[in-house]
Amino acid sequence: MVQAVQDPTSVGVVAPRRIGIDAPLPLECGRLLAHHELMVETYGRLNAARSNAILICHALSGDHHAAGFHEGARKPGWWDNCIGPGKPIDTERFFVVSLNNLGGCRGSTGPSTINPDTGRPWGPDFPLLTVRDWVRSQALLADALGIARWAAVVGGSLGGMQVMQWTIDFPERIAHAIVIASAPRLSAQNIAFNEIARQAILSDPDFHGGRFYDHGVVPSRGLMLARMLGHITYLSDAAMRAKFGNELKIATPSFNFDVEFEVESYLRYQGQSFVDRFDANTYLLMTKALDYFDPARDFSNRLDHAFAKASARFLVVAFSSDWRFSPARSREIVKALVDAGREVSYALIESQLGHDDFLMPITAYHDLLRGYLHRVALECEA
Amino acid sequence: MVQAVQDPTSVGVVAPRRIGIDAPLPLECGRLLAHHELMVETYGRLNAARSNAILICHALSGDHHAAGFHEGARKPGWWDNCIGPGKPIDTERFFVVSLNNLGGCRGSTGPSTINPDTGRPWGPDFPLLTVRDWVRSQALLADALGIARWAAVVGGSLGGMQVMQWTIDFPERIAHAIVIASAPRLSAQNIAFNEIARQAILSDPDFHGGRFYDHGVVPSRGLMLARMLGHITYLSDAAMRAKFGNELKIATPSFNFDVEFEVESYLRYQGQSFVDRFDANTYLLMTKALDYFDPARDFSNRLDHAFAKASARFLVVAFSSDWRFSPARSREIVKALVDAGREVSYALIESQLGHDDFLMPITAYHDLLRGYLHRVALECEA
Repeated sequence: MVQAVQDPTSVGVVAPRRIGIDAPLPLECGRLLAHHELMVETYGRLNAARSNAILICHALSGDHHAAGFHEGARKPGWWDNCIGPGKPIDTERFFVVSLNNLGGCRGSTGPSTINPDTGRPWGPDFPLLTVRDWVRSQALLADALGIARWAAVVGGSLGGMQVMQWTIDFPERIAHAIVIASAPRLSAQNIAFNEIARQAILSDPDFHGGRFYDHGVVPSRGLMLARMLGHITYLSDAAMRAKFGNELKIATPSFNFDVEFEVESYLRYQGQSFVDRFDANTYLLMTKALDYFDPARDFSNRLDHAFAKASARFLVVAFSSDWRFSPARSREIVKALVDAGREVSYALIESQLGHDDFLMPITAYHDLLRGYLHRVALECEA
Repeated sequence: MVQAVQDPTSVGVVAPRRIGIDAPLPLECGRLLAHHELMVETYGRLNAARSNAILICHALSGDHHAAGFHEGARKPGWWDNCIGPGKPIDTERFFVVSLNNLGGCRGSTGPSTINPDTGRPWGPDFPLLTVRDWVRSQALLADALGIARWAAVVGGSLGGMQVMQWTIDFPERIAHAIVIASAPRLSAQNIAFNEIARQAILSDPDFHGGRFYDHGVVPSRGLMLARMLGHITYLSDAAMRAKFGNELKIATPSFNFDVEFEVESYLRYQGQSFVDRFDANTYLLMTKALDYFDPARDFSNRLDHAFAKASARFLVVAFSSDWRFSPARSREIVKALVDAGREVSYALIESQLGHDDFLMPITAYHDLLRGYLHRVALECEA
């Protein structure tokens, strides 16, 4: 902690705040949330013109804690390498807003919070959400914060989908869209991986139809399997080989099902620690939001038509080793934007790790964000 | 059936036979099987010189029924497109032997057969096996069939690993080694996928530590997840896109966890039908044999040294769309063979489907096998 506070490139100790949204939120499923709460962190200062705000949209398992340290914590927020004084998302120039999305499990209203109508956790009664629902909720949050227009909205993976949706649904409220390691919709393979993760959770006897809170258990086996599977798809084959080789931990096989390979113990650890910090219903909800994302669906499957009303300038970033959301998928976005006459820059970052590279401090990547956002900052300061 | 019998390129109606192996089989785990039984099918005729025999080694979920039709069945054996009169593995020239490996679940001695010591299914008491164990068992089968030397041993995927092991352990008993869509050992990513499949089975409450037979249940949820996951990795992303797109079956999301995408119903069907025909303990055993395969391990991790005593001529075949056992892995095999001074031909087949392409009647692939085996047949007939 002391170390973090002393680091001049860290935002230091931060604390989230809970913001109540009293405006009713109509959802794509047809239901209406009369009220919801969002956990939010902010870094940097909003300028007098209220023109320097950047929204960070998180991916599947992310949350509001993107930068700095919570009091007493040793690990910083999930994108601390990118957000801070002098960092690519420079908190000396920008007011950065990060939230736990609606339906999350880190304090925002979601399946594991109390349903005021019943006094018990929402569980399976919580509505399934779409990326569009999140963007609407984020727009209400912007209203609450007095931010009429974002200097930029930034997100990777599922976060990048929220960025795209912002440009379509609220074109006048977003100046720059930074879409990282994302896709215009999931591939059949992506959906297949999500489906297996969901089946692992849904078929766990401890899931109890989503009402496991009432039974004092969690569907830990299913959630663990889902996370292990997700984790593999975030890493490239080469990265796994570099990290683990396939060396046996022991010289000869044990001929039982104990851990024998480093990658096995790594995966079991990743799975177990996820169970301790994540909610199974939220995981289901997040994978469904991924599957449903398809902004072209309402435009006769023409993504360029979906972007017709967008007015933001776009930066689209892909990573060479990402096979979950491959560069080809980013190029689909770029092509649709070009076809729609939008202004777009595209960068392919040479990388090794796979999809997770969007969270890594790769020099070329951070230099790119830094350069792009420097120009955005100059616009804000003009 | 009538159709099959009439088809001049089909071996027609076939029936397996159960062959008892009374020679003791020492296993790599240190245990000894005093007796075991193998389910075997043969196609074509052994010539007078007993020189025209080809052994087919099956992959993870394969069995002895490789070609022709079982009485009353509508579906032929798993490699019927490749084995038959005039087909690449020509039963008018070769005597083809196909078996269900030891540890399998289609009638050969394995976890689901009766342990003579207890009168109950072996279950978890059945030893875990290695590719080397299988090859030893297959050599005893060759003895029983009076085959001193195979004209060729042929196998894809896990079957290709058995082919390689044959050339190392019984160099004098194999003239040609045809290694298809295989790898010199699994990658960390491969092992990770196997580990998740195993955890799905092992953590299923109906697994009962492998003694589910005694409880009148099967770990269907776990086995289904394992198969669904395996299935995705056998198909390329492009193949899944071609097959399913990612179109919603319905115009708008249902906002529940019912099937909404074609790929979901396909996977659930694949998973369920696998549960009806495969044994969970055999699945575990097969994945462990895959993980353990590493012929270089006993040679200071030098694969070329492992092949030093091999005398077979090799044909190594890879498929461009296979990401589970990519062409790069086949080239590792080829490089080691070249470094060891062995005779090897390598072919990369342009393909679309992924790993499963090794089972498909791709023209260039079948022409290659046909041409190679034509020369093998000439040797046998010389």
